[in-house]
Amino acid sequence: MAVHKHLRTQVAIVGAGPAGLILSHLLHLAGIDSIIIETKARNHLEERIRAGVLEQGTVDLLNQAGVGERMQREGLVHGGIELRFNGRSHRIDLRELTGGRSVCVYPQHEIVKDLISARLQAGGQILFEATQVQIHDLTTNSPRVTFQHADELHQMDCDFIGGCDGFHGICRPSIPSAELSTFEKLYPFGWLGILAEAVPASQELIYANHHSGFALLSMRSPSITRAYLQCKPDEDIAAWPDNRIWEELQHRLNTSTGFHLNQGPILQKGVTAMRSFVCEPMQYGRLFLAGDAAHIVPPTGAKGLNLAAADVRILASAIIRWYRNNASDLSERYSEICLRRVWRVQHFSWWMTSLLHRFDSADGFDHRRQLAELEQVVNSKAAATTLAENYTGLPFDTSGEL
Amino acid sequence: MAVHKHLRTQVAIVGAGPAGLILSHLLHLAGIDSIIIETKARNHLEERIRAGVLEQGTVDLLNQAGVGERMQREGLVHGGIELRFNGRSHRIDLRELTGGRSVCVYPQHEIVKDLISARLQAGGQILFEATQVQIHDLTTNSPRVTFQHADELHQMDCDFIGGCDGFHGICRPSIPSAELSTFEKLYPFGWLGILAEAVPASQELIYANHHSGFALLSMRSPSITRAYLQCKPDEDIAAWPDNRIWEELQHRLNTSTGFHLNQGPILQKGVTAMRSFVCEPMQYGRLFLAGDAAHIVPPTGAKGLNLAAADVRILASAIIRWYRNNASDLSERYSEICLRRVWRVQHFSWWMTSLLHRFDSADGFDHRRQLAELEQVVNSKAAATTLAENYTGLPFDTSGEL
Repeated sequence: MAVHKHLRTQVAIVGAGPAGLILSHLLHLAGIDSIIIETKARNHLEERIRAGVLEQGTVDLLNQAGVGERMQREGLVHGGIELRFNGRSHRIDLRELTGGRSVCVYPQHEIVKDLISARLQAGGQILFEATQVQIHDLTTNSPRVTFQHADELHQMDCDFIGGCDGFHGICRPSIPSAELSTFEKLYPFGWLGILAEAVPASQELIYANHHSGFALLSMRSPSITRAYLQCKPDEDIAAWPDNRIWEELQHRLNTSTGFHLNQGPILQKGVTAMRSFVCEPMQYGRLFLAGDAAHIVPPTGAKGLNLAAADVRILASAIIRWYRNNASDLSERYSEICLRRVWRVQHFSWWMTSLLHRFDSADGFDHRRQLAELEQVVNSKAAATTLAENYTGLPFDTSGEL
Repeated sequence: MAVHKHLRTQVAIVGAGPAGLILSHLLHLAGIDSIIIETKARNHLEERIRAGVLEQGTVDLLNQAGVGERMQREGLVHGGIELRFNGRSHRIDLRELTGGRSVCVYPQHEIVKDLISARLQAGGQILFEATQVQIHDLTTNSPRVTFQHADELHQMDCDFIGGCDGFHGICRPSIPSAELSTFEKLYPFGWLGILAEAVPASQELIYANHHSGFALLSMRSPSITRAYLQCKPDEDIAAWPDNRIWEELQHRLNTSTGFHLNQGPILQKGVTAMRSFVCEPMQYGRLFLAGDAAHIVPPTGAKGLNLAAADVRILASAIIRWYRNNASDLSERYSEICLRRVWRVQHFSWWMTSLLHRFDSADGFDHRRQLAELEQVVNSKAAATTLAENYTGLPFDTSGEL
């Protein structure tokens, strides 16, 4: 039997993505010790292109946690989005419709950089490139994490485990399948995404419903364009040389009034499949799932990272309450509290996806109904407000318990 | 060759349902002559149980046309509806959400009685029980209607034909099929409806999403309950003795706080299939389709009669403008103007239907997403306002042209 190096922490966190890092930092601010175990290398996490639109509440959370300094300097605050269909463009004024709320474009990997830096500066421990990570004794008061790190086997004892290791991580599968219900929807399309060295052709995001399929013009910085095209879920990226991508983006984003993309070298391109996924409950014994480990949304509403932040905001409160007040009431209700928001956000993400994409299965009725709904969104203040409230982020529980 | 009795009118109207009758009356008020040809008997029309929820705009139209006197006296004004799901009931305050708008419960056959009476009192002609109705020469300036009435063959010359003879009427099929696009959706369920001599158990309509299927508690008067159960589209009514219907209604409408239906003799029961249907365009030469002849909505949003009234409001304006100003600009745009509203209402009716019914094809994800959307409707003022604005009726074109 292998000899283990023994470690002890209050909260073991599996995964150094935004969920795990924010959780670790929020706990640290409350004087609670945690160690993060991560299978990837630091530079991989700090360079991996992911989400980039932050809800007002996520921005507030990062600022309150003291890790928002660079985000405030470099993030692009957006007070609106554009919806394009039928050859016209309509602006949804998020700020006006929500009484001043906005979103912030700041890439996930920049947040990860800021959080890793803040954790390490504060003496936090992140064990990168761990292998053979396993979690044990989840239904006892002393759960454990075992893993190999720097050629040594480790065993880490703790009070709680934060399962923040994403959709393909080991935490969710460690829950006996009989204890979990899963809910899933696969979409009959994917997104072909590019990152390009080109000044974004619009200061705000443009969502286009076009007869050739959905397109999204986004950005990562004032000089980097991010853009997406609806494609087949198994689209062959080799069939998309750069000029074809630019032509198709120009085609789908154009309006009768004329619109011209700025082109530039494509730095990265790839195809992402789209799914909705939820597991219930999000906790099992002393294991608490957060972020993609528990749920996936299609990217249309830009909610994945924000929902992860919402989870760990609640999880941190529950754990802090457990240590400070010796009270498990909140930790017992963690899943129930999270899932209310999760399902609202799942609905919104499904709705944005359904509203903006072309479905091969759709007939003429479905198509005109979709355009009629888009007309409603841009012509009815109430309908636009519903979109704006969801897009900028639903409010958090104000009952005072969190 | 048969000898025809010759008639002449300005506008020949096929169908004495609400669309045809309102059109005839609006034209009369502007001094334009019309004759209505109807295949059914007067008492059949006056007793046929159909819709019963009138938008504010439909109420206003009937009042302005001087046929609203009994409706104002006997109609039940409703300032809200209830949504029931997950064992709880939530009121949507239509009046508050729309700045004072409401709906009026007044049965369609009572409107038909009032309109027939008003037409006949004003000397209007309605030829009931006509047979072999055909329309001719639609693309000429002198279209014709031929039919048999009181054992005589008739030919009626006119300037315009109002096609108000419903989904199964002869007007729409008289348009060459190559000139029409049709859009249709059949739903995998029907409504089992009853009319009962029982005091309605609620002063407002109750829409219930229940795991056994949708239910709706409505009313026709302070002493007559109208109620519906989601059922199979080809449900055998013989399998539903009265007590089974009452039990199922009680089961689906009940909440954890207790709710008790008032029962009474069931006066009428039947199963209705549900469909969405639109034909485009709604005009062909001198023929103008209005109401169910051009479009069908599922009854969930209570929009069929209201959409028919919206059509003929526009059609009457277009015809009046033609005679008064010798201008065909509005009549040429009749279809285009109507279809904007038609598709908004089609979307709303589909949405209400999708939100409230259980679909056999739905999986666990769809079901929880549906409940999350219901939560949004009852918890977000913006989402509730969108429902309320559509339910009480979208505004009419305020550009002044109508």
